[in-house]
Amino acid sequence: MQLLLINGPNLNLLGRRETDIYGTTNLESIEEELRGKAIKENVDLDCFQSNSESEIVERIHDSFKKVDGILINAGAYTHTSIAIRDALLGVSIPYVELHLSNTYAREDFRHQSYLSDKAIGLVSGFGIMSYQLAMQGLLNHIRTSN
Amino acid sequence: MQLLLINGPNLNLLGRRETDIYGTTNLESIEEELRGKAIKENVDLDCFQSNSESEIVERIHDSFKKVDGILINAGAYTHTSIAIRDALLGVSIPYVELHLSNTYAREDFRHQSYLSDKAIGLVSGFGIMSYQLAMQGLLNHIRTSN
Amino acid sequence: MQLLLINGPNLNLLGRRETDIYGTTNLESIEEELRGKAIKENVDLDCFQSNSESEIVERIHDSFKKVDGILINAGAYTHTSIAIRDALLGVSIPYVELHLSNTYAREDFRHQSYLSDKAIGLVSGFGIMSYQLAMQGLLNHIRTSN
Amino acid sequence: MQLLLINGPNLNLLGRRETDIYGTTNLESIEEELRGKAIKENVDLDCFQSNSESEIVERIHDSFKKVDGILINAGAYTHTSIAIRDALLGVSIPYVELHLSNTYAREDFRHQSYLSDKAIGLVSGFGIMSYQLAMQGLLNHIRTSN
Amino acid sequence: MQLLLINGPNLNLLGRRETDIYGTTNLESIEEELRGKAIKENVDLDCFQSNSESEIVERIHDSFKKVDGILINAGAYTHTSIAIRDALLGVSIPYVELHLSNTYAREDFRHQSYLSDKAIGLVSGFGIMSYQLAMQGLLNHIRTSN
Amino acid sequence: MQLLLINGPNLNLLGRRETDIYGTTNLESIEEELRGKAIKENVDLDCFQSNSESEIVERIHDSFKKVDGILINAGAYTHTSIAIRDALLGVSIPYVELHLSNTYAREDFRHQSYLSDKAIGLVSGFGIMSYQLAMQGLLNHIRTSN
Amino acid sequence: MQLLLINGPNLNLLGRRETDIYGTTNLESIEEELRGKAIKENVDLDCFQSNSESEIVERIHDSFKKVDGILINAGAYTHTSIAIRDALLGVSIPYVELHLSNTYAREDFRHQSYLSDKAIGLVSGFGIMSYQLAMQGLLNHIRTSN
Amino acid sequence: MQLLLINGPNLNLLGRRETDIYGTTNLESIEEELRGKAIKENVDLDCFQSNSESEIVERIHDSFKKVDGILINAGAYTHTSIAIRDALLGVSIPYVELHLSNTYAREDFRHQSYLSDKAIGLVSGFGIMSYQLAMQGLLNHIRTSN
Amino acid sequence: MQLLLINGPNLNLLGRRETDIYGTTNLESIEEELRGKAIKENVDLDCFQSNSESEIVERIHDSFKKVDGILINAGAYTHTSIAIRDALLGVSIPYVELHLSNTYAREDFRHQSYLSDKAIGLVSGFGIMSYQLAMQGLLNHIRTSN
Amino acid sequence: MQLLLINGPNLNLLGRRETDIYGTTNLESIEEELRGKAIKENVDLDCFQSNSESEIVERIHDSFKKVDGILINAGAYTHTSIAIRDALLGVSIPYVELHLSNTYAREDFRHQSYLSDKAIGLVSGFGIMSYQLAMQGLLNHIRTSN
Amino acid sequence: MQLLLINGPNLNLLGRRETDIYGTTNLESIEEELRGKAIKENVDLDCFQSNSESEIVERIHDSFKKVDGILINAGAYTHTSIAIRDALLGVSIPYVELHLSNTYAREDFRHQSYLSDKAIGLVSGFGIMSYQLAMQGLLNHIRTSN
Amino acid sequence: MQLLLINGPNLNLLGRRETDIYGTTNLESIEEELRGKAIKENVDLDCFQSNSESEIVERIHDSFKKVDGILINAGAYTHTSIAIRDALLGVSIPYVELHLSNTYAREDFRHQSYLSDKAIGLVSGFGIMSYQLAMQGLLNHIRTSN
Repeated sequence: MQLLLINGPNLNLLGRRETDIYGTTNLESIEEELRGKAIKENVDLDCFQSNSESEIVERIHDSFKKVDGILINAGAYTHTSIAIRDALLGVSIPYVELHLSNTYAREDFRHQSYLSDKAIGLVSGFGIMSYQLAMQGLLNHIRTSN
Repeated sequence: MQLLLINGPNLNLLGRRETDIYGTTNLESIEEELRGKAIKENVDLDCFQSNSESEIVERIHDSFKKVDGILINAGAYTHTSIAIRDALLGVSIPYVELHLSNTYAREDFRHQSYLSDKAIGLVSGFGIMSYQLAMQGLLNHIRTSN
Repeated sequence: MQLLLINGPNLNLLGRRETDIYGTTNLESIEEELRGKAIKENVDLDCFQSNSESEIVERIHDSFKKVDGILINAGAYTHTSIAIRDALLGVSIPYVELHLSNTYAREDFRHQSYLSDKAIGLVSGFGIMSYQLAMQGLLNHIRTSN
Repeated sequence: MQLLLINGPNLNLLGRRETDIYGTTNLESIEEELRGKAIKENVDLDCFQSNSESEIVERIHDSFKKVDGILINAGAYTHTSIAIRDALLGVSIPYVELHLSNTYAREDFRHQSYLSDKAIGLVSGFGIMSYQLAMQGLLNHIRTSN
Repeated sequence: MQLLLINGPNLNLLGRRETDIYGTTNLESIEEELRGKAIKENVDLDCFQSNSESEIVERIHDSFKKVDGILINAGAYTHTSIAIRDALLGVSIPYVELHLSNTYAREDFRHQSYLSDKAIGLVSGFGIMSYQLAMQGLLNHIRTSN
Repeated sequence: MQLLLINGPNLNLLGRRETDIYGTTNLESIEEELRGKAIKENVDLDCFQSNSESEIVERIHDSFKKVDGILINAGAYTHTSIAIRDALLGVSIPYVELHLSNTYAREDFRHQSYLSDKAIGLVSGFGIMSYQLAMQGLLNHIRTSN
Repeated sequence: MQLLLINGPNLNLLGRRETDIYGTTNLESIEEELRGKAIKENVDLDCFQSNSESEIVERIHDSFKKVDGILINAGAYTHTSIAIRDALLGVSIPYVELHLSNTYAREDFRHQSYLSDKAIGLVSGFGIMSYQLAMQGLLNHIRTSN
Repeated sequence: MQLLLINGPNLNLLGRRETDIYGTTNLESIEEELRGKAIKENVDLDCFQSNSESEIVERIHDSFKKVDGILINAGAYTHTSIAIRDALLGVSIPYVELHLSNTYAREDFRHQSYLSDKAIGLVSGFGIMSYQLAMQGLLNHIRTSN
Repeated sequence: MQLLLINGPNLNLLGRRETDIYGTTNLESIEEELRGKAIKENVDLDCFQSNSESEIVERIHDSFKKVDGILINAGAYTHTSIAIRDALLGVSIPYVELHLSNTYAREDFRHQSYLSDKAIGLVSGFGIMSYQLAMQGLLNHIRTSN
Repeated sequence: MQLLLINGPNLNLLGRRETDIYGTTNLESIEEELRGKAIKENVDLDCFQSNSESEIVERIHDSFKKVDGILINAGAYTHTSIAIRDALLGVSIPYVELHLSNTYAREDFRHQSYLSDKAIGLVSGFGIMSYQLAMQGLLNHIRTSN
Repeated sequence: MQLLLINGPNLNLLGRRETDIYGTTNLESIEEELRGKAIKENVDLDCFQSNSESEIVERIHDSFKKVDGILINAGAYTHTSIAIRDALLGVSIPYVELHLSNTYAREDFRHQSYLSDKAIGLVSGFGIMSYQLAMQGLLNHIRTSN
Repeated sequence: MQLLLINGPNLNLLGRRETDIYGTTNLESIEEELRGKAIKENVDLDCFQSNSESEIVERIHDSFKKVDGILINAGAYTHTSIAIRDALLGVSIPYVELHLSNTYAREDFRHQSYLSDKAIGLVSGFGIMSYQLAMQGLLNHIRTSN
């Protein structure tokens, strides 16, 4: 099984700024740990981060028929990008939306998502733990759907 | 560590109706399985279901100083009960909001929640798997907060 | 054939207060008269009134596979209870929404109903006559659906 | 007693199109059957259908002091015609609003009605049965008001 | 003269939690002190607290023709319960709405009340002093209305 | 100079119904009196009433290059007819909007007009006097514009 | 009979600025002409202009029991002053709202008025002619009301 | 193949007024030219213009089972007529919505259409060229659907 | 202790108009009675009424460091004056908002207040009794805050 | 004459996914066919597709003074990109907005476009035929504008 | 060149209250410093502060044909005064809107301004530096416009 | 001290298009002049323009701990990019938002900004002078904050 983890804009800053809020773990460590857990599940996990809406769109295109499920923390693009939504629907790959922070505890404009209604499910607010939970949820969905 | 799982209105019907959508697992099995997983984590999990807003409010009151974290699938009350929100804030126990289905894929009135902004985090859409993910997220939160 | 009549909050006051508006017929008389009409139609009509949202939810649960149609005057809960909506949808029993008064001639918050869009039909404004009309409509629906 | 049944735009198509949804009964049959029921109640029922807002307005004007009650299925004009509302209020004849389908189960713009708040009552969703229920409700209202 | 004090959901927690905000006075003491002041005014004050919407509705029903005025701190139900509003209007007993905290200094959803427009008056924000002010206002209203 | 007075739906009922509100003067008398005043001003006034949106549209078309100004009391069509607005703009004849009653003292849907923003001016609330004032205003506008 | 004309903020600039739009007639001339017309009607007209909300409020207070009708062009205060509305209602003197320009052809915030719904009537858009029309409408109202 | 072109209110004025905006081509010429193009496509095109909502509704009814596709420029009725929408859906004939001008460059109330969501497609803004484009689009749709 | 009572626009009319609604007590009597009660509490009460927004603003400025609490019935300015809000916040004096009538039983625009969210508390609807209740609430607040 | 066709995000997937909906024609074929038609019209058509908002912006910049008209199917950016709107307005090249699907038959957020109000015209819903229609409309506009 | 600086309500408190937020510089010093800078630019700067809407309106009137540009910090009146907007437009003097604080970082009602859309420009958030920047911007505008 | 000037999409067109509106100064000249002024202030100013949201995001990331303040004219991204907002907050560098034109005098969608509430301040409407004013404001802020 092949999974893809997509991290959107500003997530490359993880562990480098606002460490009092987000902790000192950087994105590479998160990805590595998650890949480790994936391997134990006999799953291959590809990790991708980009600050560019179009690169994310194209990475999703490239996954067509190659990837069984997508984990996506689209960051700010969650609330502004219909293009990413369209790409996800275009390739017909099940995906889980995830967020580090609880978006409902933040500004009003973060309460609306272009991804939620078509996602398998949503995990938000658990910090870096959100990644693991989302992957488990996605794996469980794929396995029970087959 | 003591956790409480609260299930709100209509969740007692699980596994008994609409089994094509929700599966044939009933609430008792879900609770049992979750309690089993809790024990492995050295955690005591209490389970409570009620169709009554006031019983849920009072069960939360009773948890004051006795419970370390709450898992709550408030069902329809998620969208209509400020009383449950107030009870949760009143006892100051960290809680996770969870849903079986993806509420964003359903009617508009299910997109608003009185619980989300004060929750640790939110898990929705993974079917009965949502319970496990929520418990893991809550446990991780409690352990890393201490 | 088995029908269930549900009356929601404050309807137990019928005939006891505001008799200039609602008349002097109390709920028991309405129920009795309706049961009489049901018998003539070879239909068994059960009557239930409660001021409690959860009792109404549970009465609907109890009707699962036992009741062929529900007449519901949910009173104030029409406008505030998603739990009752969910219960009605959960048991998959056809129902008719009815009101004594014309809710569109009253406060704005009574113009919205959580029950209407999934009901067979709606009868409102005919005073106690609304009950008879609703029962006829429901019976006709059930008979022509079979 | 003299009643008037008004059917608005597109209702002349009944039984001729979308027969899988609306059945094969055409408007003439509905009117005939209803007139039959009216006769049994010692009531004279006049039937009128028009696709024209102004013809409906003028038919209402013509009823002034000649008609004791109006049954109106204004179809699409329910949601767009203040002129028909004004005509009904101008002649001060009690009226019942009725619909074949459940308008709350359809597009948002069908949830608003210019007729409801001033009607005796509302019947919707029971298919052609709506006509009978509406007539009974209207008759009962007229008789108990005198 | 007979008055009734109704306290809604979560108010039983007073003095037991968040004592830094709400003080250490519990509900029993408030009730006792208020009853004392009532006696000095030759008034009998009954006190009732419930977390249940239906119990509050029914307590109001029971007051019909027995109680001259109601003091109500409906807590969260202020913003969600049309049933309590209907009960208060049904028994036609004058009532005063009161709140411990200033609801306008809190979440947006607390700025709307189903009780205010039909109340004699409103007192909010004075902590436990709100009860005394509300009782004085209600007494003055009843005495000057006679 | 040639003027046209247009009266919309239900205004043919003037003086025939609700005479306690609108008085006993009928539309013919209003038109006659206004024509008399017009003659004194050396103005020819044509009067037209219709309950039909399309007849009003076509009467406006017919006025193209023949009429110097239009007085229009479009009644209910004020609030629902873009077709009449388009006709008035299409023939480029200055017009005054008038109403018998004060539309701002009535239902919310009467506060919006499709005619106001392109009218010379607006007169409302003066009963049948509104016609005279509107004609004076229109005449003055035409004379001072030349 | 005693009438009062109130002109609100910026109307003292009439005839002095933007003369291409508003013409070269200044406020004094308008007042003088209107007083002349009033005298012919055996009416005493007092004229008052102020840029101050409170002075207008107080001038209305001073009219209590001394003035039979008020003509008011409240200018910008039309859209922002509840105090002037309250003063007008407080003294219970019938008033007519008038505007030089067509407020519906201008910014959105000029489409809302705190005065309209309680006014006898409204005249707008006729330039300085609006004053004469408003006075005639007011006089006619007062005379036919007695 | 049989097509029907429907032109709504005020379109009979084309080429007769506002010729600087809409050009000097009148509706008859447009219809003639379009019929010519239709003939070359072996298609019979019927043309119909009416200022009356009900006549348009009835023309659509008459097309039932006789017409393969409808081109409709409903003019102002685009934004106000649910009756025309219902007629189009009732006869189940595919239709294309077209406009001479770009409705999005005009008043806000022209941005909403009761026809768009059920149309095959939409062409707007190309002046009289819109008719040709719409016919081509409709023909292509019909031919590729068979 | 020094308190200040501020009464806003139109309150000088109290007892002079609409005496059937507001009673025959004028503002001077209210102020006198309140001053009397204040003296018994060893409190000096200054009373100020103005119809002018700026005079109220300046009176609040003058209170800086001289006044311990403010009672304010800002009348219509409650709903329109951000300047008074800013003045109250600028001088950092605790204040209580009060109203004679129940503003929630009146027009929609009276349901919004620029003063409520920063006030100690709110008293409304008790007629002239509102002043006493507000003073007691303010005194209690000041005394328990020290 | 020089035209430019711009296709936005996800349109490179055409013919490769969801072929049951969009058909098996890929973007290259569409472009080729359109270029062929352009040549017959003596027009040079450049084709450009990008998933990147900034690349589209820059392609528009590059067209300044080189291109006579633009055909743009901006896909998801239609609803989210003000930058593309600004680029189109900046270079002052007439453009036509086009869509494969009928955007009004899809999600609410697709009903709003940042491009429509400044476009020559709009073509949507005709599948790949939309490209041809849009090019014809644009050509006709350019030719008749010169 | 003659400039006018207008400061609105509560700005006379500068440097006297909330000195931790606004600093200890009072309005007189700001005015003096700004006048000094103006002199160096060969510009005469008049300074005016008022808490009164009408005094500000009248000061603007007085500037007609005497002042070349206005700097206005209207404080709370920015958000509530259409009268000041009208005065500024009436005298046709270019003006710059300025604020000490960043109004977008404050309450929602401060995000709307009646002055912005007609101002030359806007400067906000720089504390007392906002005055200098605004004056430079205004001077530059006047000089480059001539 | 190190400052960064960021110019967003389409600003590279400055001086090249719409020169009647924006003047003939191109972006390079603006940058050069501003750098000159910066040098006089002993400040090093870096200039960056991009049409790409992600390049702007990444340039902000690169500024972390290297830049003391940012001047940003984000153009269209001001109104659509949460990613840029997040980047600015992520690196915790004070920034000033600036615009050439007065955004409040333009389309409604330009009145909302994702950058304003967290900016030091805002300068808009002064054309290329906005850059100088913004830099002065930013410098003053940084110097007085240290």
